[in-house]
Amino acid sequence: MANLPDLVDIQEAHHRIKKYIHKTPVMTSRQLNERVEAEVFFKCENFQRVGAFKFRGGSNAIFSLTEAEAQRGVTTHSSGNHAQAIALAANMRGIRAIIVMPENAPKVKVNAVKGYGAEIRFCEPTLEAREATAKQVIEESGAVFIHPYNDRRIIAGQGTAALEFFQQQPDLNVIMAPIGGGGLMSGTAVAAKKLSGDTLAIGVEPEAADDAYQSFKQGKLIPVQHPDTVADGLRTSLGELTFQTIRKYVDDIVTVSESTIIQAMRFIWERMKIIVEPSSAVPLAALFEKKLEVENKKIGIILSGGNVDLESLPWL
Amino acid sequence: MANLPDLVDIQEAHHRIKKYIHKTPVMTSRQLNERVEAEVFFKCENFQRVGAFKFRGGSNAIFSLTEAEAQRGVTTHSSGNHAQAIALAANMRGIRAIIVMPENAPKVKVNAVKGYGAEIRFCEPTLEAREATAKQVIEESGAVFIHPYNDRRIIAGQGTAALEFFQQQPDLNVIMAPIGGGGLMSGTAVAAKKLSGDTLAIGVEPEAADDAYQSFKQGKLIPVQHPDTVADGLRTSLGELTFQTIRKYVDDIVTVSESTIIQAMRFIWERMKIIVEPSSAVPLAALFEKKLEVENKKIGIILSGGNVDLESLPWL
Repeated sequence: MANLPDLVDIQEAHHRIKKYIHKTPVMTSRQLNERVEAEVFFKCENFQRVGAFKFRGGSNAIFSLTEAEAQRGVTTHSSGNHAQAIALAANMRGIRAIIVMPENAPKVKVNAVKGYGAEIRFCEPTLEAREATAKQVIEESGAVFIHPYNDRRIIAGQGTAALEFFQQQPDLNVIMAPIGGGGLMSGTAVAAKKLSGDTLAIGVEPEAADDAYQSFKQGKLIPVQHPDTVADGLRTSLGELTFQTIRKYVDDIVTVSESTIIQAMRFIWERMKIIVEPSSAVPLAALFEKKLEVENKKIGIILSGGNVDLESLPWL
Repeated sequence: MANLPDLVDIQEAHHRIKKYIHKTPVMTSRQLNERVEAEVFFKCENFQRVGAFKFRGGSNAIFSLTEAEAQRGVTTHSSGNHAQAIALAANMRGIRAIIVMPENAPKVKVNAVKGYGAEIRFCEPTLEAREATAKQVIEESGAVFIHPYNDRRIIAGQGTAALEFFQQQPDLNVIMAPIGGGGLMSGTAVAAKKLSGDTLAIGVEPEAADDAYQSFKQGKLIPVQHPDTVADGLRTSLGELTFQTIRKYVDDIVTVSESTIIQAMRFIWERMKIIVEPSSAVPLAALFEKKLEVENKKIGIILSGGNVDLESLPWL
């Protein structure tokens, strides 16, 4: 069994990164509480730096490096929030970052990574090309590779969102997060189970990208084939470390439909007046689909991020 | 000269309504501060009840009524945020509210008003018809009329946003708000001038609905003809009371173009991850157009509300 992340890793991560991250607020909605007959609390990682929880893990990984490692620089492959998180954290530590991005990555994301001072190495838009290019970067530059989720430092960093959440709202009966690669859910579940024996840790996935659900139920890692979900942050499959952590600490995983994800996303925009990406709306969709018993309970939901393309909204 | 609202009215209003309203948060954006070379603070009335600052004035008016007045019920004509504010506040006080709305008002707004338990009286979509219908309602029911802005109670209520703002961020060099009918700007300017002699109170209008600018510069009330601006909350003209208050307490009024309003709105959505209506973006547009000296200053902006139609965004 892999050496799973523990509460102390999360606490150390929080101590390490707290001066770099935003302590994001917790928000509520009276109308929502009436609708679902529960008290729902949202931890707003859409307000986190780079617009997503990913900066917690990224900054923890970067600031965990030894001086010798830091001098080698860092690399990763990502076209999404992890790329920006690593770029910004490396910039803050004053070290080199080389980000491998597919050549069809949206210009706005390429520019964001460049804006944080990282170097970009373009590659063909396939997982094979990304991995090969990253390998080449490592060989050429000696840079330290930072995986987006299958990494203890990353998981521990993501767990700091739940750590703060329990400080802000200690009496949660349930804590929920979306599952993509599983870094956020792993950190959330470890924090929940170690900080509060009574809190259920529930992961939520789109039906159309249900590898964590399948893996959890069948007890073995089953990567998703051709995920086709509006929740673009959740198309990734679990890694070995996140699977083992989720298996041990998560109480249950439920899935939701695409239409409920869009409905939940729109509810958050319209009623709460905050911008969240589709992935963020996945746990709320589970409440709308009544996938768990919540009546009169206190439910904590981690809103994973707010990076959306305002030109193409899913309800248009 | 009209009997202008004073700081004590605002303080009494705050005391009266503080258990009903949200104390809205103040938000900042590092990226914005770098761009405009100033420290900008946003008072987030988009998170206020009914999604706009209007609930402050509405609740102050409703809870200012004597018992005898309250028993008569209240009425107003509005198809926008004021209607919802009056409906919700009347519901909270447990009194009758009759809202005159144009028959072409968006269904979502009609339903919101109904949802708060108010009665709706439809009329032709002209100002004349609205006023005539409201007059008829008053004659038939004896209801107390509550004007959306040309009313001391309303102005005092709107001023509580600035009152809170100065508690949250006491050292503002400039405070800015958009001007439609002028209720928010009047309350903001009175609070600013009486609480802080050093703070400039600046109003901002779309060029396409610049009646307050024209009236302020020419020293007489000049209603706007055919306002055509994306900032739908700012198409109204000043009333006598708001004009006199603005004339006395506001330091300057500047105007901005439609394209900058849209650009500023989009900036707030993309970078700050919050939903604001076009009217809210008007003061930020003035910073983007460099309409005032802000370098190294602390600038407070009141974001008026967040009620937008998510089906039709101005940049699409």
